Amino acid sequence: MEWLVKNVTYRPHCYFCITPEGILQFRFAQSAPQNLKARECSNWVLLEDHRKKLKDIVEFDKSLLRAFTMVTKNPEKIYPNEDSLRTKFQNIFLSISGLVRHAPVFKDYIFQGLKEFHADNVFFLEIRTMLWPVYELNGEIHDQLWVVRAYQEVADEFKRTHPEFMGFRLIFSDYRTKSLALIAHSVRTAIRLREVFPDIIAGFDLVGREDTGYSLYHYKEALMIPVTYGVQLPYFFHAGETDWYGTSIDRNLIDAVILNATRIGHGFALTKHPVVKAYTQNKDIPLEVCPISNQVMKLVSDMRNHPAAALMAYGHPMVISSDDPAVFGAKGLSYDFYEAFMGIGGKRADLRTLKKLVTNSIKYSSVSKTQKDLFMKVWKLKWNQFIDYLARRPR
Amino acid sequence: MEWLVKNVTYRPHCYFCITPEGILQFRFAQSAPQNLKARECSNWVLLEDHRKKLKDIVEFDKSLLRAFTMVTKNPEKIYPNEDSLRTKFQNIFLSISGLVRHAPVFKDYIFQGLKEFHADNVFFLEIRTMLWPVYELNGEIHDQLWVVRAYQEVADEFKRTHPEFMGFRLIFSDYRTKSLALIAHSVRTAIRLREVFPDIIAGFDLVGREDTGYSLYHYKEALMIPVTYGVQLPYFFHAGETDWYGTSIDRNLIDAVILNATRIGHGFALTKHPVVKAYTQNKDIPLEVCPISNQVMKLVSDMRNHPAAALMAYGHPMVISSDDPAVFGAKGLSYDFYEAFMGIGGKRADLRTLKKLVTNSIKYSSVSKTQKDLFMKVWKLKWNQFIDYLARRPR
Ligand SMILES: [Zn+2]
Ligand SMILES: [Zn+2]
Repeated sequence: MEWLVKNVTYRPHCYFCITPEGILQFRFAQSAPQNLKARECSNWVLLEDHRKKLKDIVEFDKSLLRAFTMVTKNPEKIYPNEDSLRTKFQNIFLSISGLVRHAPVFKDYIFQGLKEFHADNVFFLEIRTMLWPVYELNGEIHDQLWVVRAYQEVADEFKRTHPEFMGFRLIFSDYRTKSLALIAHSVRTAIRLREVFPDIIAGFDLVGREDTGYSLYHYKEALMIPVTYGVQLPYFFHAGETDWYGTSIDRNLIDAVILNATRIGHGFALTKHPVVKAYTQNKDIPLEVCPISNQVMKLVSDMRNHPAAALMAYGHPMVISSDDPAVFGAKGLSYDFYEAFMGIGGKRADLRTLKKLVTNSIKYSSVSKTQKDLFMKVWKLKWNQFIDYLARRPR
Repeated sequence: MEWLVKNVTYRPHCYFCITPEGILQFRFAQSAPQNLKARECSNWVLLEDHRKKLKDIVEFDKSLLRAFTMVTKNPEKIYPNEDSLRTKFQNIFLSISGLVRHAPVFKDYIFQGLKEFHADNVFFLEIRTMLWPVYELNGEIHDQLWVVRAYQEVADEFKRTHPEFMGFRLIFSDYRTKSLALIAHSVRTAIRLREVFPDIIAGFDLVGREDTGYSLYHYKEALMIPVTYGVQLPYFFHAGETDWYGTSIDRNLIDAVILNATRIGHGFALTKHPVVKAYTQNKDIPLEVCPISNQVMKLVSDMRNHPAAALMAYGHPMVISSDDPAVFGAKGLSYDFYEAFMGIGGKRADLRTLKKLVTNSIKYSSVSKTQKDLFMKVWKLKWNQFIDYLARRPR
């Protein structure tokens, strides 16, 4: 996010405005954009001009950074509840979308993200993405095929400069606030994209707040399109992201397994559903556990009480994920591994815990058996180097 | 505790002093007690004289109340961690013990406690007690037999004025800081007391902080005395009172069931031990869940993350207990039921939840089948009245 402020907002042709609700909007254009949408503000200002008039550019840039992350000095006061957190979350996406959806920025943004994960020793990623349309300076708009191809180009480019990097796959995701018809359309899009880019598109997910959004059950006709037509479309459903037993969010967890999910995002409610728990264990369906995300979203404060602690204690399938690290003010995945190791894993967590979690990441990834074997081989080399370093380092 | 300040400390012959560590000590005596113990302070002051010299008695009484409970305006600051909580907890017991162990106060104190629980619609109790020696004004000291008899007398007296009250039983408890020999002695005492007072003495427990105290395993020779001699001594062990997986506290949970515990105090760690969980479920060994105690002791903040929420979701045997309500600034049991109902039970908790929890209290009490049947009969009448009231009350 710092890169967005320091690099992207300093690029030429960057216009901004502030909506009536006080949300920053950005747009790259040859000249000031004309009334783009009714909900957006009307007076676009060239950021370059604005900065020239400012006395304290450092403070202005800080304010931009504040608008781009949830980081604040008084989180308890600023975000008293989940509503305020979710609102800020959405506002961040609204603010940055005009920046990152500009075609040249878009590719640089992905590249930048890969750099951060690579610096964190992450060599393969599975990324949830909406595949929003990307625009050029002249207003031209690119479709989802173009966007996936852009991802692929960046991955290839990144591999050239970082030969150890193994690439990424995309989980095409859509909002659970949309109508059944729109989601059915997205499911068909996911199937088509997977046909065109079998190496890149891993599957489909529905994201967004579960209790105010529609349930998986609501979308059953859409989500059963693949099985109806005998097409493969792996599901990576966000489900059960709640600490409160007995809501509609719990039912998503049940429907996620009924709909044959390959992995479950969060699954925070799982310990309250022994049948789903036993089923996912037997079928080896892992949870994607996101410690920092759960903390930021106020689902749990002390990681020792994270439901995954009870699950990890007996080896329930799970992987560690960082959800949306940039928004939370975090980078990469290590911080989440740290919390999982220090809190969720208990007092006697040790190298075996880390080893298990990393090998789980490989085991439960969406790639082919051949590719997993390769990942394991590469990882083993790195792990042995790490152990060697631990054993020999001066104390 | 308010009663202790407003009533007991106003009684004649009440001396007090302050230890070098700043802990208040009390003692009823004909004249100022002479150096009682080295650890205690030397200058005893008659409270009556002290109050006469005071300008602000109201403030002084408030300070006494503060010394008798953990209630404070800034709990986060005053009690940053478990150590500070446990210290305060012990200091409270040190402070009030000189008051409540005075024979006439002792009986009134029990009576007062029964009144508070009775006002809270609690009609039968099982009370953990150390059976500390009780003293008379002239210095005479009563032994444990006298103390149990005093409990019994108070119960009989209370029943005369509160005919619905069903009485209580005692769980003789000792500290897990003591030597094996002392605990072996206490186990034998418990056996003897149970022979003399079969209706009153329910069994035995070890209390106190589990990680700094000895483990159940440490006391195995003492705790196996009953089984060795073929004597019945039901165990109601405090075990697994931790949110941190992998400590010695976890092992207490395992040893509690190996030692054939009748109920388990707290068992907060149970969800991290699937074998013990399945075993206690099959053997119908309930947990005593203490929501407020766990909150005060910083084991969990949001009740929706209390491990009992996962257990209650599928009907694991449990009862609700208030641990040490007076010390926490609470009264009776309703507040704990409230937390269990609002948080642990989930969003769809309803009358059935309350009904189940109350009937569990009867089902898992230590009394005979005949007595349980009677309890159920009486409770059903009261429950029906309650439902009737709910149905007919104006809205
Ligand atoms: Zn997410
Ligand atoms: Zn206790």
